[in-house]
Amino acid sequence: MSSSILDRPDAPSPDAPTLTLVLPDGATRTVPAGTLPRDVVASIGERLLKAAVAVSVDGEVQDLITPLRRGGAFKVLTDKSPEALAVLRHSGAHVLATAVRRVRPDAKIGFGPAIDDGFYYDFEVAAPFTPEDLMAFEAEMRKVVQEKLAFERREVSRDEAQVVFRDDPLKLERLQDLPDDEVISTYRDGDFVDLCRGPHVPDTSWLKHFKLMSTAGAYWRGDSKRQMLQRIYATAFFKKEELEAHVHRIEEAKRRDHRVLGKALDLFQFFPVAPGAAFWTPRGTTIYNTLIDFVQERQKERFLEIKTPLLFTKKLWEQSGHWGKYRENMFLVLDNETNEHDMSLKPMNCPSHHLYFTSTRHSYRQLPLRYVTFDVLHRNELSGALSGLTRVRQFAQDDCHVYLREDQIVDEVKFLMDFILGYYETFGLTATLKFATRPEQRIGSDEMWDRAESALRGALEATGKPYELKEGDGAFYGPKIDFDVHDSIGRAWQLGTIQLDYAAPERFDLTYVGADNAPHRPVVIHRAVSGSMERFIAILIEHFAGAFPVWLAPEQVTVIPIAEDYAEYAGRVAATLRESGVRVVYDAASTEDYRVRIREAATMKVPYMLVLGRREAEAGTVTVRTRGREKQEAMPLEQFVARVTDEIRSRALVPVSDADEAAAAKSAS
Amino acid sequence: MSSSILDRPDAPSPDAPTLTLVLPDGATRTVPAGTLPRDVVASIGERLLKAAVAVSVDGEVQDLITPLRRGGAFKVLTDKSPEALAVLRHSGAHVLATAVRRVRPDAKIGFGPAIDDGFYYDFEVAAPFTPEDLMAFEAEMRKVVQEKLAFERREVSRDEAQVVFRDDPLKLERLQDLPDDEVISTYRDGDFVDLCRGPHVPDTSWLKHFKLMSTAGAYWRGDSKRQMLQRIYATAFFKKEELEAHVHRIEEAKRRDHRVLGKALDLFQFFPVAPGAAFWTPRGTTIYNTLIDFVQERQKERFLEIKTPLLFTKKLWEQSGHWGKYRENMFLVLDNETNEHDMSLKPMNCPSHHLYFTSTRHSYRQLPLRYVTFDVLHRNELSGALSGLTRVRQFAQDDCHVYLREDQIVDEVKFLMDFILGYYETFGLTATLKFATRPEQRIGSDEMWDRAESALRGALEATGKPYELKEGDGAFYGPKIDFDVHDSIGRAWQLGTIQLDYAAPERFDLTYVGADNAPHRPVVIHRAVSGSMERFIAILIEHFAGAFPVWLAPEQVTVIPIAEDYAEYAGRVAATLRESGVRVVYDAASTEDYRVRIREAATMKVPYMLVLGRREAEAGTVTVRTRGREKQEAMPLEQFVARVTDEIRSRALVPVSDADEAAAAKSAS
Repeated sequence: MSSSILDRPDAPSPDAPTLTLVLPDGATRTVPAGTLPRDVVASIGERLLKAAVAVSVDGEVQDLITPLRRGGAFKVLTDKSPEALAVLRHSGAHVLATAVRRVRPDAKIGFGPAIDDGFYYDFEVAAPFTPEDLMAFEAEMRKVVQEKLAFERREVSRDEAQVVFRDDPLKLERLQDLPDDEVISTYRDGDFVDLCRGPHVPDTSWLKHFKLMSTAGAYWRGDSKRQMLQRIYATAFFKKEELEAHVHRIEEAKRRDHRVLGKALDLFQFFPVAPGAAFWTPRGTTIYNTLIDFVQERQKERFLEIKTPLLFTKKLWEQSGHWGKYRENMFLVLDNETNEHDMSLKPMNCPSHHLYFTSTRHSYRQLPLRYVTFDVLHRNELSGALSGLTRVRQFAQDDCHVYLREDQIVDEVKFLMDFILGYYETFGLTATLKFATRPEQRIGSDEMWDRAESALRGALEATGKPYELKEGDGAFYGPKIDFDVHDSIGRAWQLGTIQLDYAAPERFDLTYVGADNAPHRPVVIHRAVSGSMERFIAILIEHFAGAFPVWLAPEQVTVIPIAEDYAEYAGRVAATLRESGVRVVYDAASTEDYRVRIREAATMKVPYMLVLGRREAEAGTVTVRTRGREKQEAMPLEQFVARVTDEIRSRALVPVSDADEAAAAKSAS
Repeated sequence: MSSSILDRPDAPSPDAPTLTLVLPDGATRTVPAGTLPRDVVASIGERLLKAAVAVSVDGEVQDLITPLRRGGAFKVLTDKSPEALAVLRHSGAHVLATAVRRVRPDAKIGFGPAIDDGFYYDFEVAAPFTPEDLMAFEAEMRKVVQEKLAFERREVSRDEAQVVFRDDPLKLERLQDLPDDEVISTYRDGDFVDLCRGPHVPDTSWLKHFKLMSTAGAYWRGDSKRQMLQRIYATAFFKKEELEAHVHRIEEAKRRDHRVLGKALDLFQFFPVAPGAAFWTPRGTTIYNTLIDFVQERQKERFLEIKTPLLFTKKLWEQSGHWGKYRENMFLVLDNETNEHDMSLKPMNCPSHHLYFTSTRHSYRQLPLRYVTFDVLHRNELSGALSGLTRVRQFAQDDCHVYLREDQIVDEVKFLMDFILGYYETFGLTATLKFATRPEQRIGSDEMWDRAESALRGALEATGKPYELKEGDGAFYGPKIDFDVHDSIGRAWQLGTIQLDYAAPERFDLTYVGADNAPHRPVVIHRAVSGSMERFIAILIEHFAGAFPVWLAPEQVTVIPIAEDYAEYAGRVAATLRESGVRVVYDAASTEDYRVRIREAATMKVPYMLVLGRREAEAGTVTVRTRGREKQEAMPLEQFVARVTDEIRSRALVPVSDADEAAAAKSAS
């Protein structure tokens, strides 16, 4: 760029203080305060300016046309920078409002922020938007994008702003709320002007890849006493493929919705007489029990399963602190003998585990002790907040508390991490780790926190997995590692946790007898893997889209004779499979045509169908239809039994033959 | 007997009406009213008179010296008649009181009845009896028995009685309560006279086999506002062996007390913050889970396991009728949103099963449908009534509800009976059956009851087992079969039940679609096998005296190296067993002497100990100590693995080798 920055009216005054910007390569630029970032970017390179969406100064994102007011680390954000997406989407909201005002000049504007998955804009209009309205807005938005309107920033006085927004009462109200010393700015693209702090992309042509998603009513400022506005949800991405992937993910999520699949596959139900507590059907119960069996099998040797009561008097909750801090989330129970609500259903297992620990003398040699429990828990969620299996009132956790010496923390955390990551792997779920360290408000000495954090960090680093550091995000009683699990369509769910707890041992006066024969405080680790079993099953339903791997499928094999003549053979095949522990569907009494039965089995996503006719009966073979595959295979019954039992035993994620073929293809290439 | 009955002052008057007595062989005797039974017995035979304890007239027991006032079936009761034992024990109470008054003439007498397992007598004395008192009473009782004092009956006027008992205020109080037309009688043996209706044995020499059991305070007439009396519990039998067996059984019951063994074997615990709800230790949890696994395995093919919520709004309980009739037994839960107690923890599974049944359309071809559930139940037992695992507030049932057509009842009841009896057999428990038929208060037509009862009777008779008929003892909603289970020391426990229910299908509007495509009412069967899992485990603990069969034992094999040198071999042995699914105790870190470890394993009643030294390590063998057997056996490790896994798989009640030996001995004899 050849023109001097002094040529422009918004150029900094010559006597402005200077700012020092540090570029990523360590080079520095010294510029007067008030310099526009685009001029700095241009000075680095014209091509970079073309690619620039915004900049980040000392960690704060601002656009290219907002005068620099601070120095520090200076980074140019392009369409590859994670921080740039929110800028794009914020501009998307302006493009949306620009289009809406062209089509419906009467629409008053509210707020239009970027949100997690996109952006929205709220409008005050006489009637809700129709699908036709949305189509018209979308078409108009395409025009606005085509027009490549530059986003223009102006810093204005309060009086000036009141004139600009004289016809937009919501904006005027907003204006009143701004503090006196706030820099008030407006952004314009074409005819549309918004009261806005920025940042924005350079012009509307960046918004090529957007999509309007839905519309819904929303109270002005979320206040149900104020007027109802019409909110339009939308999203935008820098690249077409990203938008398409996002839309696909949303459609997939809809298709996989566990509430829908739970009904279609007959896994669970809710009844109004038990809000937030599922009825598990026989199929759902099979999945539930199979999961518990799996956890029990994995925990058999090194964990101690105990069962504890569900109902406790308030004395326990006073000791644990729940009575004071958590009571409104608990279900209080009337004690007939005192006529008071002085009992409660347990919302978590920790207090009963700690209590049980106190019942025996423990030697330092017996630690670590790991108690696990699958007891039913209750939490008093508001009935309006309940949703499927992910927000329930009754659930169970695969809950573990470890009681250990401080010198055992490193080994124990490594052991638990392996345990947890191995568990997720069984389901084809990948995990990312978050490490949360000492918060401002905390108990214990700095040395204690040093030891605890370094133990967790050591264990984390031993896994070789990257982790996100969440400084100050630990609990007041200790640092923790959280496990976010990513499902097959890329969504993240927080599931597992490993939390060190230095407070509970004090509260419950937990002790073990040391080598010195004196009592010592153990440390407690809270460990969850699935979190809630109910929520985990919901995630699995969505992750697998209901097509569970064989070991987890409620029904593993359906046996279908193509005519009455082969019913006897079908019965023998079913019996043979059952004897091998396979869950078989074979309805000897069915009078349905075999094609209907094939369709039903496909609908229920049964992994294998054995369709049997004369050829199979005579040869003692089965013709196998594998879920999700075109090709049928004929094989001796014994071979199929061996295959399916092997898949069950190994908890294979995909049919053995597929994996074999894939491996064969790989080794051949 | 040669003397005429007219010789005696208590002889009936010559113009008394005559009574007809029908002897068991069908012969009749006609005697004047007022005739003494002993004269009738004497007329049958002098030897019979010697053996006679009392008689039964028209089903009512009376002694030999109470004048006959009615005719009817006349049976002489001897020491073999079940009804005679209560007579003996009632006389035992008089013998006790006779002795107490001789030793402590100041003791005022209260009541002294026969009870289920013996008798007691209440005395008003200044201070509780001491063990020395009891010994003195027992010695004096032996004298009273030796003295062979006849029991003499007198019918007296109210005035006369008041004179006789002028020094016994409790007796005078009792006298006042007797209705005006009551025949007032006294019984005397030696110096002791009691206000008493009888019946009694002929004299005190019948009481040779008695034993004082215990003493305890008891309020006069059970009223805590009245004075505290001292009660002496005792028992008596006709035969020495019977008394010894009884005492043995009581001692065994004490030794086997599940509350004591539960602590000693570390199976469960209770804490004051959860009255009536057990904490199951790892050992106890293993038993609990193994039992559930066993039931699940047996129920796998023909039952449908479901899981239902624990907490329901009162709407369900109003529909089921529990809200009106059972509310005080339920734990009411506060609904934060209404601030009312309009939810309750479920005390039973029936309503949620019925509700679940209504959620789908059922074809007549799909019946019977059998839902099973192991959900946690809560009942609000008074805290004072709680005792070990047999009276608890939290428990689970192996609960089943069958929904079926009326024409399926016979087959279904047969199937369920086989299922239940086979279950008990696994534990070496024998069952006796009770069949309870239509009560006075009932719903449904006589034809319905005819069909239902004949179906149950048919199924009962198909088993070939004897059963007790309990006429009129059925529920108002249908007839039932109850299963009393007899444990290894002969005690009976009511466990299982099969109840037909014609009411629930109406209340819950249950329907299935018949062959005519129209809705029909199914019948419901309530089936329990273990009753409460908690109580069943208590019974098993006592039945096995804590020495569980291998498959159920929390720890199946303990591995004990006799020195550190063999620890590595012991570790390999333990690992081999674990891989075969055996529950092994091997504490590699233990520094205890092997003799201490052997003692510990014996105390914990571990079925097998493998004690390993140089010889075993070198030869790859194990030396096996089998619980309860003297002889040790050496064998290759593989042989032991095969033996123990076989025992586990077959759920053997005794070690395989024992059974083999027994079978071998039997076939050889």
